[in-house]
Amino acid sequence: MHIFTRPILEINLFNLLENFNQLTKLAKNSIPAAVIKDDAYGLGAEIVAKTLYKKANCRHFFVAHAIEGERIRNKVPDAQIFVLQGIGEDSLACFEQNHLIPVISSPQMFEFWKVHKISGIKPVIHIETGLNRLGFREWDLEKLSADDIKEFSMVMSHLACGDEKDHFMNKHQLENFNRLKQKYFPLLPASLAASDGVFLGQDFQQDMVRLGAAMYGLNTAPYRENQMKNVIYLKAPVLQIEDLPQGEFVGYSATYRANSNRKIAIISIGYGDGIPRSLSNVGKVFFKSKNQLFEARIIGRISMDNIICDVTNVEDLNVGDWCYLLDDFYTLDDMGRDAGTIGYEIVSRIGKNTRYIRHYINE
Amino acid sequence: MHIFTRPILEINLFNLLENFNQLTKLAKNSIPAAVIKDDAYGLGAEIVAKTLYKKANCRHFFVAHAIEGERIRNKVPDAQIFVLQGIGEDSLACFEQNHLIPVISSPQMFEFWKVHKISGIKPVIHIETGLNRLGFREWDLEKLSADDIKEFSMVMSHLACGDEKDHFMNKHQLENFNRLKQKYFPLLPASLAASDGVFLGQDFQQDMVRLGAAMYGLNTAPYRENQMKNVIYLKAPVLQIEDLPQGEFVGYSATYRANSNRKIAIISIGYGDGIPRSLSNVGKVFFKSKNQLFEARIIGRISMDNIICDVTNVEDLNVGDWCYLLDDFYTLDDMGRDAGTIGYEIVSRIGKNTRYIRHYINE
Repeated sequence: MHIFTRPILEINLFNLLENFNQLTKLAKNSIPAAVIKDDAYGLGAEIVAKTLYKKANCRHFFVAHAIEGERIRNKVPDAQIFVLQGIGEDSLACFEQNHLIPVISSPQMFEFWKVHKISGIKPVIHIETGLNRLGFREWDLEKLSADDIKEFSMVMSHLACGDEKDHFMNKHQLENFNRLKQKYFPLLPASLAASDGVFLGQDFQQDMVRLGAAMYGLNTAPYRENQMKNVIYLKAPVLQIEDLPQGEFVGYSATYRANSNRKIAIISIGYGDGIPRSLSNVGKVFFKSKNQLFEARIIGRISMDNIICDVTNVEDLNVGDWCYLLDDFYTLDDMGRDAGTIGYEIVSRIGKNTRYIRHYINE
Repeated sequence: MHIFTRPILEINLFNLLENFNQLTKLAKNSIPAAVIKDDAYGLGAEIVAKTLYKKANCRHFFVAHAIEGERIRNKVPDAQIFVLQGIGEDSLACFEQNHLIPVISSPQMFEFWKVHKISGIKPVIHIETGLNRLGFREWDLEKLSADDIKEFSMVMSHLACGDEKDHFMNKHQLENFNRLKQKYFPLLPASLAASDGVFLGQDFQQDMVRLGAAMYGLNTAPYRENQMKNVIYLKAPVLQIEDLPQGEFVGYSATYRANSNRKIAIISIGYGDGIPRSLSNVGKVFFKSKNQLFEARIIGRISMDNIICDVTNVEDLNVGDWCYLLDDFYTLDDMGRDAGTIGYEIVSRIGKNTRYIRHYINE
């Protein structure tokens, strides 16, 4: 018998590279840029950037904040690093020191840029086409002078519903984008598609695609089976197995009651490790035993450090065995759906915790 | 006009100390131990431990994992550090090197301990009294020998419903605890109460109280007004303000549609910074303007880096102004409730993100 206490997080960089290469082939007429904001969706921006730079020859990266660009600069010395949230007083020095390219999303930010221009840097202009998030509206574009327009090196926008193939918004945004680009920036290269947009075809791919979620294994085209490889594997040890007599309650606020005698396992992972508490009494975990995969229901409230699950039907389970929380057979998308959210939020959350034993495969 | 891009997280250590001292007074006959697992609920275990050690003379700390004990050991050189998840093959060396005290929660872990005992360390035994999570059941206790019982330095358990004053489970667990303690460990000091248990009175406080959630400002006695001071303050800059014409959609999957002309603000913070995506179309944020506090509804889906809110009724708002997400007037408990969870999960999540400009007040 073994006793372990720490969960293990495995990030498969080989699969991540395969995904990147597959997406690159799908958008073969576009420059592939890697989106590694939010610490590469929690998977570790430095190592992901280095891997893509060295093994996939990637030379274009998107981050959200300048500080994220600073963290990867020495891993991708001659790459272009675009900063989606743009530039401000709190990041100007960071842009200068690390030669980062701001994405300018509003007239006010553009005024700031014109005062604080960094020599050798030409920003990207973000235009709004239907998401109604960041970006110049057409009424803002109308006010740009010919000289203003020469400031920019690329025009970009972002899709609202790219993961729904037939959503009217896609066509609406593509038409808006092409029209605004032709009217205001006919000479600039253009970027519209993130991972989801890549699957919508060449019209959407334009000159540069921004590969994020799908590279990390998420299904950004959920109207058909996921063609990406899973990148993240998470398991935690069984700390204890006990009988749960009929009538007993489980967990905080006693939200689960046993209607019959059950067997429960206490797992050494909880919402403090990034497992959404909304999986309480709803989610599932897995065990491997006797060459079989067993599913077990999470019962009671998930707590900060522990999950309790019903293992009555799991054969031959022992303390020290592994409980599987994310794997090829239960992915980020699956957990996201069960938790009432999306895989993006799951991965962004899990990777930031420091209690895991963390392995990178094929580093 | 100003342009900022990064959110700012402020942790008020003065208030944290006040909370600790207030709780210590409430449990004046018990030893106060600080629970700083999960990186001090995300607030930074090293700095919280150091503060409590130096300024509140705290000499007893609880963490979940040995690795968390290692991270604070040099800040609290002669303190007792208890490890709630216990000891295993993956943590044995860490226990030895850092002189950590395991909480033993199962017969199997106790067998492991007996083989791998660390000289000079006497573990705590965790007994189960109604939560049905970790801990020796009575049928496990019956098998302990007199010599076994001498191994331990303290007996502890944990409440399931301590935040509900009149829940039958509290009395049930207290009776169970006192009975099992008397029967099996009559000579040992005892610990039953976390923050919530402190408010249930002296019977629950026993010899040591484990102060966590309430110290961080959470209301662990939500049947009455919070008596703790708020510890965490979070604000993010307004990146852009735009008109939203009637009929327009907002955000991913177009989940919000404007029924009249609105004014929206795009804020530089998202679920990648730990703001729960479940606040989409439900949550609220705040602005300070003209000596007034304005509330604004979050509209559309929260995305990884941005929140969009309806600022139609916010007077005199400008790009670069601050949007307040957590403050005295909207606390972790408030955000937890609005997000369909609890403040514990919010704080544990937010503090782990590295894009914030982070300030500690009264460091």
